[in-house]
Amino acid sequence: MPELFTVSTPHAALQKLFDHLSRPIAIETIPTAAALDRVLIESPIATSALPAFARSTMDGYAVRAADTFGASEALPAYLTVMGECPMGQAPTVEVRAGQAAVIHTGGMLPDGADAVVQIERTQKTTETEIEVMRAVAPGENVLQVGEDVKPGDQLFSTGHVLRPQDLGGLMAMGITHVTVARQPRVGTLATGDEVIDPQFEPQPGQVRDVNTYSISGIVTRAGGVAQSGGIIRDNFDALYQAAKDLIDQSDALVLSAGSSVSVRDMTSDVIERLGKPGVLVHGVSIKPGKPTILAVCDGKPVFGLPGNPVSALVVGDLFITPTLWRLQGCARPPHQNTMKARLTHNLASVPGRVDYIQVKLIDRDGEVWAEPVFGKSNLIYTLVKSDGMMIIPIDANGVAAGEMVEVKLF
Amino acid sequence: MPELFTVSTPHAALQKLFDHLSRPIAIETIPTAAALDRVLIESPIATSALPAFARSTMDGYAVRAADTFGASEALPAYLTVMGECPMGQAPTVEVRAGQAAVIHTGGMLPDGADAVVQIERTQKTTETEIEVMRAVAPGENVLQVGEDVKPGDQLFSTGHVLRPQDLGGLMAMGITHVTVARQPRVGTLATGDEVIDPQFEPQPGQVRDVNTYSISGIVTRAGGVAQSGGIIRDNFDALYQAAKDLIDQSDALVLSAGSSVSVRDMTSDVIERLGKPGVLVHGVSIKPGKPTILAVCDGKPVFGLPGNPVSALVVGDLFITPTLWRLQGCARPPHQNTMKARLTHNLASVPGRVDYIQVKLIDRDGEVWAEPVFGKSNLIYTLVKSDGMMIIPIDANGVAAGEMVEVKLF
Repeated sequence: MPELFTVSTPHAALQKLFDHLSRPIAIETIPTAAALDRVLIESPIATSALPAFARSTMDGYAVRAADTFGASEALPAYLTVMGECPMGQAPTVEVRAGQAAVIHTGGMLPDGADAVVQIERTQKTTETEIEVMRAVAPGENVLQVGEDVKPGDQLFSTGHVLRPQDLGGLMAMGITHVTVARQPRVGTLATGDEVIDPQFEPQPGQVRDVNTYSISGIVTRAGGVAQSGGIIRDNFDALYQAAKDLIDQSDALVLSAGSSVSVRDMTSDVIERLGKPGVLVHGVSIKPGKPTILAVCDGKPVFGLPGNPVSALVVGDLFITPTLWRLQGCARPPHQNTMKARLTHNLASVPGRVDYIQVKLIDRDGEVWAEPVFGKSNLIYTLVKSDGMMIIPIDANGVAAGEMVEVKLF
Repeated sequence: MPELFTVSTPHAALQKLFDHLSRPIAIETIPTAAALDRVLIESPIATSALPAFARSTMDGYAVRAADTFGASEALPAYLTVMGECPMGQAPTVEVRAGQAAVIHTGGMLPDGADAVVQIERTQKTTETEIEVMRAVAPGENVLQVGEDVKPGDQLFSTGHVLRPQDLGGLMAMGITHVTVARQPRVGTLATGDEVIDPQFEPQPGQVRDVNTYSISGIVTRAGGVAQSGGIIRDNFDALYQAAKDLIDQSDALVLSAGSSVSVRDMTSDVIERLGKPGVLVHGVSIKPGKPTILAVCDGKPVFGLPGNPVSALVVGDLFITPTLWRLQGCARPPHQNTMKARLTHNLASVPGRVDYIQVKLIDRDGEVWAEPVFGKSNLIYTLVKSDGMMIIPIDANGVAAGEMVEVKLF
């Protein structure tokens, strides 16, 4: 029997999909405080300096540096304390030659002062006089105006995923709202006459829906919002209608179809009718997940997954996750969480195919080992028992026990 | 001037904090579909087998394996096709000696059959007869009852963080609700006479609040929910009252205080009054972040952070994040996202102190290098420009340029 479809390499398949994504990035403006892990689309320009005034980085005395030159423990400089710089206000005191003012960390430098002497380097001689036992250079222990940000600075690059400190950085500039990519809505449909809603008790021959929930988790982690269109019978009209309704309200569509040849063909036909150019890739040189369909319908990505649970994770990693970041205009998706480990078993592989192997990480004498969790790709609990997947590259014959491998952590 | 406090190593400090956390883990029952990244507290036991019936893993024919023994392309076995196994139902057909039934991937094996022959290994001779060109062993291409899960199996370990496939695995067993740790509510207070709400325009001497937002992001990433108590003046009564009100409604408290000695002392005094045993650690051998306060007040963790933005990230990494996972009863927090890179510069360090150095990852001839982003720890944009932090361990004198280092990615 001939191959039913010609297979693409994962890289070529993703590229083909990307080449046909034509919709502009949907954007929205939201409070910065709620923008963690969102993709920044309009990168603000600094309109003011940060800090806006020279600030002390120490508790001590604001001084003129020149007054401390040559000071040492043996030969201290004597300065008259003129007052204190209050926090949160411009100091009213001015520091002239031979004078100093008490200043706290973060306090604004008074006029005339150009440096701060740490309190630990001084000693009080009277209520209004100190000994300075160490010279400071001009600018020492001072944050200069604009040392953090200068007016006109581009604060972020476009497509940046906002992290905790980025929210702080935006707020420091008074940017309380940001324009970010809208979270892509990803419609998911499970198909199969045997698939039922998990809340029901399966009758003989029936199985509960698994992929709707796994895929929803994958979508969430890639910044999207999953919306389930439910479970559809293996019937062309029913599947087409459900897919059409769902894609109209979504930015992307995932069909988790059965793995049988007839169902695969039906899924492909349904996708062809959803929009142009339709199916781009039907079959990828990966294991598991070979019968994957990648399509673009009127500018929206559509994924046809073989129904087994392991494929969903593999196709998610290879195609769904990068596509969702791309839909958000993300220049550089968050680095995937990986770990090096030593492989416990020899693993054979067929060149020309990328193999995903589920592994458990175990500790042996203080070293991390990756132990393959063998099991058919129809078994969801092989995934539950795994900590991650290792990849055998397309050109490899296999990996020998004891070799270091990279594990993508779940 | 003497040291104001004795410093602890980060490890000892965290251990001391953990030793005093005495509250039971707060739990709640939520829909499984909404439980991504939550910590499972009651691990369900399987009450039924998965799969619940023997299923085909291929498109083909359900057969008695014995009928195919010795079959080859040269000498095929001939079987009579008695019907088709419908998807989602128990087959009504029975397979007897010399017989076969059409079956699809995922279909239920009919009575009498014990194996499946792939369709590719067969040929139709008439409407009701096939040639089988390869022998199959009993059980071949079949998922057996309970092969994935057996009744009585413990499905997860307690304290497991739920991943996409875990949601699928729970749903496969009909577990539509799960008992998980409640997300810890973390109160945050910013203090300082100079600190203002970011929506306002700072006057000379004033700066916008940064740490409330960075810390909130850190809390979110560790599974908690941040609730801000606002910005409090440097006044003991005001700070005590705000802290008391907030900790009463929270599971943990973070005070982002000023870095000046007087404010640090006030924070410590306030914490002492919030509950027993009070301050456990005042000063940690890290840079930046040395003046950190760790406390437990009536069973709840309290963190006093030096006010500078870099410290918040360091203290978050070392103390807040592990504590929040622990409050959720998490046995094994998600592995932190790290990456190996080659260091671009020599970095000196003082033994007896853990140094956190902000780095940018750059590509040089296809290799990843970590380039330190130098800047005072008061500068928030040094963090914005960084991709992660590298750590110089407590016993090291420094790290030489060209060495491989591990970078904790933000």
